[in-house]
Amino acid sequence: MLTFAIPKGALLKSSINLLKSVGLDFSAFLDDSNRMLQIVDPTGSAKALLVRTHDVPVYVEYGQAQVGFAGDDVLREKQPRVAQLLDLKYGYCRMAIAVPKQSPYKTPLQLPSHCRVASKFVNCAKAYFKSIDLPVEVIPLYGSVELGPITGMSDAIVDLVSTGKTLRENGLVEIEELFESTARLVVNPLSYRLNTDQVATMVDKLRFVVENQSS
Amino acid sequence: MLTFAIPKGALLKSSINLLKSVGLDFSAFLDDSNRMLQIVDPTGSAKALLVRTHDVPVYVEYGQAQVGFAGDDVLREKQPRVAQLLDLKYGYCRMAIAVPKQSPYKTPLQLPSHCRVASKFVNCAKAYFKSIDLPVEVIPLYGSVELGPITGMSDAIVDLVSTGKTLRENGLVEIEELFESTARLVVNPLSYRLNTDQVATMVDKLRFVVENQSS
Repeated sequence: MLTFAIPKGALLKSSINLLKSVGLDFSAFLDDSNRMLQIVDPTGSAKALLVRTHDVPVYVEYGQAQVGFAGDDVLREKQPRVAQLLDLKYGYCRMAIAVPKQSPYKTPLQLPSHCRVASKFVNCAKAYFKSIDLPVEVIPLYGSVELGPITGMSDAIVDLVSTGKTLRENGLVEIEELFESTARLVVNPLSYRLNTDQVATMVDKLRFVVENQSS
Repeated sequence: MLTFAIPKGALLKSSINLLKSVGLDFSAFLDDSNRMLQIVDPTGSAKALLVRTHDVPVYVEYGQAQVGFAGDDVLREKQPRVAQLLDLKYGYCRMAIAVPKQSPYKTPLQLPSHCRVASKFVNCAKAYFKSIDLPVEVIPLYGSVELGPITGMSDAIVDLVSTGKTLRENGLVEIEELFESTARLVVNPLSYRLNTDQVATMVDKLRFVVENQSS
């Protein structure tokens, strides 16, 4: 059965709405009291797994889901072996470098060599600083990255910014944007080529909806 | 100022209660509406950072907190450079291997070579399977590890179990316990040796409380 990996969190609602527009109803996942991790659409034609954002590419790569919804940020960080077929346009955010308001460093190149940068996106941070040839120590954190500069543990952070509210509340300012991110439709490459469970047909349907929305 | 790293989640309440018994009040962190990530005790004598469980050893290792409360599971997984001074006895859980109820594998040694094991604790899982000389592929997941066997992505999981409810609800059974875990008091080694901000005195006070509770 055609199976989707749907991420909890920021992309959940838009992903479920998009699937609704191609006739699949997984809105049970939107119910706060829901404890189910997999459900079948009422028509019985497709299944969905509710997983953590970072786990979507894993389920798609291993083929347990043929199709998944994943942020470009997660795809850049994890570099999974999945086919990225469609920019879904929703879930906008940007990966940025931020420093304390009172920091003397106004651009990334002003940061001192071997300074500390806290991030949940260790690979994205490393790739960026490598690209500007600045050796830094990236400190991996799981949450509340803004505490890094507040406590003096790091000079800067690399983190996702959507509205900028968290940065402002913590006295941080953005000094560089690494990239913009939106949700992407990712597909298991082999399933797509073999058109297992009509996955290619589903991708075409979703592409039609997305292209007509944005025009 | 003496600074504590306190983990969100399962260890939060007990850690704050323990600090209360040595005269420090950080109960503001227990308020659901709290958005502050660092607070100073009302007496002005100590500070606390509210961080993710996995980030506690990071703040202590880098010395932004001299003292932290961390699960033994996290310490085994991350192997941080911190001094583990005290078993705090609370936060009991165990790291276990589980398989689907109907699985033919009743012990870890029966698992086939190169089978897949999903886990949030990749290093713990790898260390265990190395110790029994069984080559397995560990699939790193961020959450809902029980979906691994349910979807057929993995033959087994390595995960924390406290009551066993999640396993039962998902048709999984424990076949091996890797280790038991409780909360530990961890300290920045240098701060402890230099007794920065009276950290050694605080450790003695906490040890006195913990030893008298458990006797």
